[in-house]
Amino acid sequence: MTEETNPYNPNHSEPLMIVISGPSGVGKDTVIQAMKKRITDLHVVVTATTRKPRENEVDGVDYFFVSQDQFAEMIEQDELLEYAVVYNDFKGIPKAQVRLALESGNDVMMRVDVQGAATLREIYPEVLLIFLTVQDEKELENRLFQRKKDKPEEIKLRIATARQEMKRIKEFDYVVVNREDQLDETVKTISAIIRAEHHRVQPRKVTL
Amino acid sequence: MTEETNPYNPNHSEPLMIVISGPSGVGKDTVIQAMKKRITDLHVVVTATTRKPRENEVDGVDYFFVSQDQFAEMIEQDELLEYAVVYNDFKGIPKAQVRLALESGNDVMMRVDVQGAATLREIYPEVLLIFLTVQDEKELENRLFQRKKDKPEEIKLRIATARQEMKRIKEFDYVVVNREDQLDETVKTISAIIRAEHHRVQPRKVTL
Repeated sequence: MTEETNPYNPNHSEPLMIVISGPSGVGKDTVIQAMKKRITDLHVVVTATTRKPRENEVDGVDYFFVSQDQFAEMIEQDELLEYAVVYNDFKGIPKAQVRLALESGNDVMMRVDVQGAATLREIYPEVLLIFLTVQDEKELENRLFQRKKDKPEEIKLRIATARQEMKRIKEFDYVVVNREDQLDETVKTISAIIRAEHHRVQPRKVTL
Repeated sequence: MTEETNPYNPNHSEPLMIVISGPSGVGKDTVIQAMKKRITDLHVVVTATTRKPRENEVDGVDYFFVSQDQFAEMIEQDELLEYAVVYNDFKGIPKAQVRLALESGNDVMMRVDVQGAATLREIYPEVLLIFLTVQDEKELENRLFQRKKDKPEEIKLRIATARQEMKRIKEFDYVVVNREDQLDETVKTISAIIRAEHHRVQPRKVTL
């Protein structure tokens, strides 16, 4: 209250709702985990998904792994901020989690696919949308092959999808190229964006 | 050219025209000098002024010190980006200097008073406007007294002006509180703003 009534210091501490988006394979998960390490009070949303856990993935940490029935129930109860079918699996953002984090004054970061990010913009115009990309298509192919979780025909589909998704960059606020072996630079850039956004004269106030 | 035609990497290197503004006494000069040290390819504009040099000020480095006749000639020849009467002295931004820096691809930073910043916004909507302020009025008074270059009645006038200027923050893009003994934090925040702005999807392209 004291800060708000001091005309010399109009800084606000309005928490941000930050979406990291971009094509499959650009490194969203890795970047978000690195952001979490760097900014300790950043709340990273755990997405709910109907897909099966990959090796090393932990329920409640990497995702909430739910059945299709459970997911249907979450939709029914309006418990999802946004949800989408991604490669035949459902993924969604639990609304309560985001609301709680924002209410406690912490910035919230979430991974959303490109289509979902555009949907969020419509519902919450003040969301902060960051588009993560790679240097070029060759690099994207390399990454998709290296993570060894998709069959060649799936990779082909992901590349084709990526080409379409790249056309939607204009709907985003910022674009960050996640260069090979330059994770630290990516993290620094996203940290700079967050720091800058907290000094905007017109804050992005998201109300859920 | 290669980067522009690569749809996966739409980052632009459009240079920014950055204005540091704010009331007299908030530390604009100190902050700008510190920015120059941190970002070596930042071009800091040398303002032309009709006021007398203060102790330690060097012509062509701190200001271009010109006569009232010379200043009138610069106005006449449309050589100034913006100019204003500040406490009975003329101050102006040499246009050629800014154009050259932008053409060479470097970000340009300049110190402009609050009224002047608003004028620049009208002429160049894509200018990046940063409002520098202090924690509170007591702090501003302390700074004005400590620099020992104004008489008490001048300080009173500067405080009264500051109160009016604070009301214009809404015309700026960002606001940064330059806290006492926290110059490094101020510099980090402004650096973050610059870094973030270079990743905006919609670049600020200034054409002089």
